Amino acid sequence: MSKLTTRENNYSEWYNQVIDKADLAEHSAVRGCMVIKPHGFAIWENMQSQLDKMFKDTGHQNAYFPIFIPKSFFSKEAEHVEGFAKECAVVTHYRLRTTADGKGVEVDPNAKLEEELIVRPTSETIIWNSFKGWIQSYRDLPLLINQWANVVRWEMRTRLFLRTTEFLWQEGHTAHATKGEAIFEAEQMLDVYAEFAEKYMALPVIKGIKTESERFAGALETYCIESLMQDGKALQAGTSHFLGQNFAKAFDVQFTDKTGKVDHVWATSWGVSTRLMGALIMTHSDDAGLVLPPKLAPIQVAIVPIYRKPEQLEAISEVANKLKKELEANGLRVVFDDDDNRKPGWKFAEYEMKGVPTRIAIGPRDLENGTCEIARRDELSKETVDFDKTVDKVVSLMTEIQDNLFNKAVKFREENTSNIDEWSEFEDEIKNKGGFVHAHWDGTKETEDKIKQLTKATIRCIPLNREDEEGKCILTGKPSKGRVIFAKAY
Amino acid sequence: MSKLTTRENNYSEWYNQVIDKADLAEHSAVRGCMVIKPHGFAIWENMQSQLDKMFKDTGHQNAYFPIFIPKSFFSKEAEHVEGFAKECAVVTHYRLRTTADGKGVEVDPNAKLEEELIVRPTSETIIWNSFKGWIQSYRDLPLLINQWANVVRWEMRTRLFLRTTEFLWQEGHTAHATKGEAIFEAEQMLDVYAEFAEKYMALPVIKGIKTESERFAGALETYCIESLMQDGKALQAGTSHFLGQNFAKAFDVQFTDKTGKVDHVWATSWGVSTRLMGALIMTHSDDAGLVLPPKLAPIQVAIVPIYRKPEQLEAISEVANKLKKELEANGLRVVFDDDDNRKPGWKFAEYEMKGVPTRIAIGPRDLENGTCEIARRDELSKETVDFDKTVDKVVSLMTEIQDNLFNKAVKFREENTSNIDEWSEFEDEIKNKGGFVHAHWDGTKETEDKIKQLTKATIRCIPLNREDEEGKCILTGKPSKGRVIFAKAY
Repeated sequence: MSKLTTRENNYSEWYNQVIDKADLAEHSAVRGCMVIKPHGFAIWENMQSQLDKMFKDTGHQNAYFPIFIPKSFFSKEAEHVEGFAKECAVVTHYRLRTTADGKGVEVDPNAKLEEELIVRPTSETIIWNSFKGWIQSYRDLPLLINQWANVVRWEMRTRLFLRTTEFLWQEGHTAHATKGEAIFEAEQMLDVYAEFAEKYMALPVIKGIKTESERFAGALETYCIESLMQDGKALQAGTSHFLGQNFAKAFDVQFTDKTGKVDHVWATSWGVSTRLMGALIMTHSDDAGLVLPPKLAPIQVAIVPIYRKPEQLEAISEVANKLKKELEANGLRVVFDDDDNRKPGWKFAEYEMKGVPTRIAIGPRDLENGTCEIARRDELSKETVDFDKTVDKVVSLMTEIQDNLFNKAVKFREENTSNIDEWSEFEDEIKNKGGFVHAHWDGTKETEDKIKQLTKATIRCIPLNREDEEGKCILTGKPSKGRVIFAKAY
Repeated sequence: MSKLTTRENNYSEWYNQVIDKADLAEHSAVRGCMVIKPHGFAIWENMQSQLDKMFKDTGHQNAYFPIFIPKSFFSKEAEHVEGFAKECAVVTHYRLRTTADGKGVEVDPNAKLEEELIVRPTSETIIWNSFKGWIQSYRDLPLLINQWANVVRWEMRTRLFLRTTEFLWQEGHTAHATKGEAIFEAEQMLDVYAEFAEKYMALPVIKGIKTESERFAGALETYCIESLMQDGKALQAGTSHFLGQNFAKAFDVQFTDKTGKVDHVWATSWGVSTRLMGALIMTHSDDAGLVLPPKLAPIQVAIVPIYRKPEQLEAISEVANKLKKELEANGLRVVFDDDDNRKPGWKFAEYEMKGVPTRIAIGPRDLENGTCEIARRDELSKETVDFDKTVDKVVSLMTEIQDNLFNKAVKFREENTSNIDEWSEFEDEIKNKGGFVHAHWDGTKETEDKIKQLTKATIRCIPLNREDEEGKCILTGKPSKGRVIFAKAY
């Protein structure tokens, strides 16, 4: 397996190479659409199953809504149409026919749809159109629905996982009797995302709200979690929206409360996508390839036999299979790789590249000594361990590696976060160092746009836990009540 | 909750009403596309998770391929284009723009795609286009891939779950070094489907192969499982295809074997879909609503308190919550429904309609007597049970109900299966009774077509386990070596 470009040399190329060589995904024959390969998909499945559990634990149910949305639906919510109905895949026909030469197919002009269908870029409109029939009374509320689905946004510049024309995601859509309950829900789901990111992805995040100009089209408030990548660029890892009564009004969804009063319901929506894969890759991986937190690694332990003769493999297999069973009994995901077509060196490189957290090598000498060699991926370190201590060691390594990755990421973020009060320093920091810059802002869209134009930095969020602090806007010097976070972002 | 139309009165209307009143699915605003509601989706999730486990246990990995397929891909495999590229959703544009009056959106004529994209009706072509890059050597084989996805086929007449424009399914796609391995795989997956249908869905199936005219477009052999619904119509529940080297040749996928010889690989594909939901509903449900086999029921036990005063509910809750915990410790999915907004009678009707296998009612009298009332959905029967025997009783009911549903379905199929050797009797049976008719056939497409035209019956399959038997074709009297199964089908 050939070496990777280093992060320092070319971060963007390094990212592409990790995805390629760790067999995570690839470009398809369709512009901007990716193929998620088995190793990449297995990581996504682990993310999905944990998130799904957290959604269900907070009372949500899954459902499924059509992939197509009638064009006219987008016009029903005024801001939504501006934000979403533009760059999208449009279905105009429902039939192909054989070409005159009999060799190919072409669109049948007689099969034109009366109203074009949009491949969903997000599902608020089609879902609220259904909710209208599901909600009549306070007894039907709260309605807590989630959908796992593919969506399509016709992106001009695409990057595997980070920005693709088609991507996979979940979208939660909820309806509530009161404004307070809806805001509680939007904030609760932000907490779920933050907990998932930090505990499972080992990805430290900052919880905040978006400025008005970065809000979801149709939302009254957009909450987000923001993370920092190793190149100093920010990545928005998930969003949760308080939608007020906008969609309920657009689709006329009303309910009768206990006293007989009729009102429109209050809404939220929230989503995370395969973009999280990009965040995961960029946060932990190194110049030797992918690094995965144990909780999400499809394989947590790879056992590799080292042998020359078949008898040696046989003796090692006996020990290795027993070890595998014991590790599995402790809930670990283990492979014993006795594939005779590949050499140990090839396997070592392969598991390293694919981010398997721990690797155990067992050779004839180990059998004699009653030991094995355990390698950990995060530190690229090795140690020889007595056989009877191996299971305990590997089990504790899972926690240790998980924590180590999180702590390293926190440390990196701390080292790349600064409070800045001078414009020249701000420009320099954004341009030459990157990272999160906490600075004062006068609260206007004009200043926000101007700063973006001058430095390419955007306001990532107004942190939920920010302290009140009188200050002056970094650009205009106008008064400000607290700092917001600026960064260049993915 | 209002009563259903009976099956005898109007089977088709009964089916629609069960789906509606059990909250399984509904029509959407998009022609032919359904919304799968939470209760329906929870059943589908249980199916998915069991099937997914069985696929992984047989060595398959999940991946994800684009929803769009370039139009030209369909022309690469000659038979495939005939079978699949006709009635489908065609994406021709990638942008909308605001209309001149500023009130709506319209297709931007400047955003026309150079090559139209087809929303996948099945993914052989786009997947084999990727496989070309994944397979070089015997070391890369077998390649055992599965995808869970949505697909679109522009159906003219749709019915919820049975035939919808968009549906959810899994599609397995595998590549092998030899013909024998590929046939083994196709047959193995048929066995997986049959095992799933019988053990989990309690749906008895007949394994067989399709006649040439019913084969998948591009397959050399199509294996299927066929089931019988309560109205005497057959339903194809799953198919597995041996594709020979057709797709490997169309997409030029070759491999080098251990000796250095280069050859095209051998392929299979196999799939089941949300159509299985239709089979599940129609096989077990009755005039009181949905009936579910315990293994797939989202809720297996519903505990309903019967009370007038809050103190009574409090006392019952204590007992009920303890019972719930014990049942859950036995691996059961339980709800204790203490919703004060609904009366017990409403809850009873609701759980009955939704097919919850067992219901436990606890009232003040029960507390005094140390008993509760257990109702089973399959037999609509009730019995009073001592409290300390309740957990054992409910646990054993799960197996009993699962077996009972399967046995009832087997019995129904037996009663509706006949061997027929006379044409007039055949016509009468198909027209007036329905069911599976085992009859001799001369093996020609002409006869198959003629029988379909005369009776609407098709050859469901040539059973894998059929006995050799000399006979005469039911229509033409020409010689035949064994019986095939005829039926009218969904």
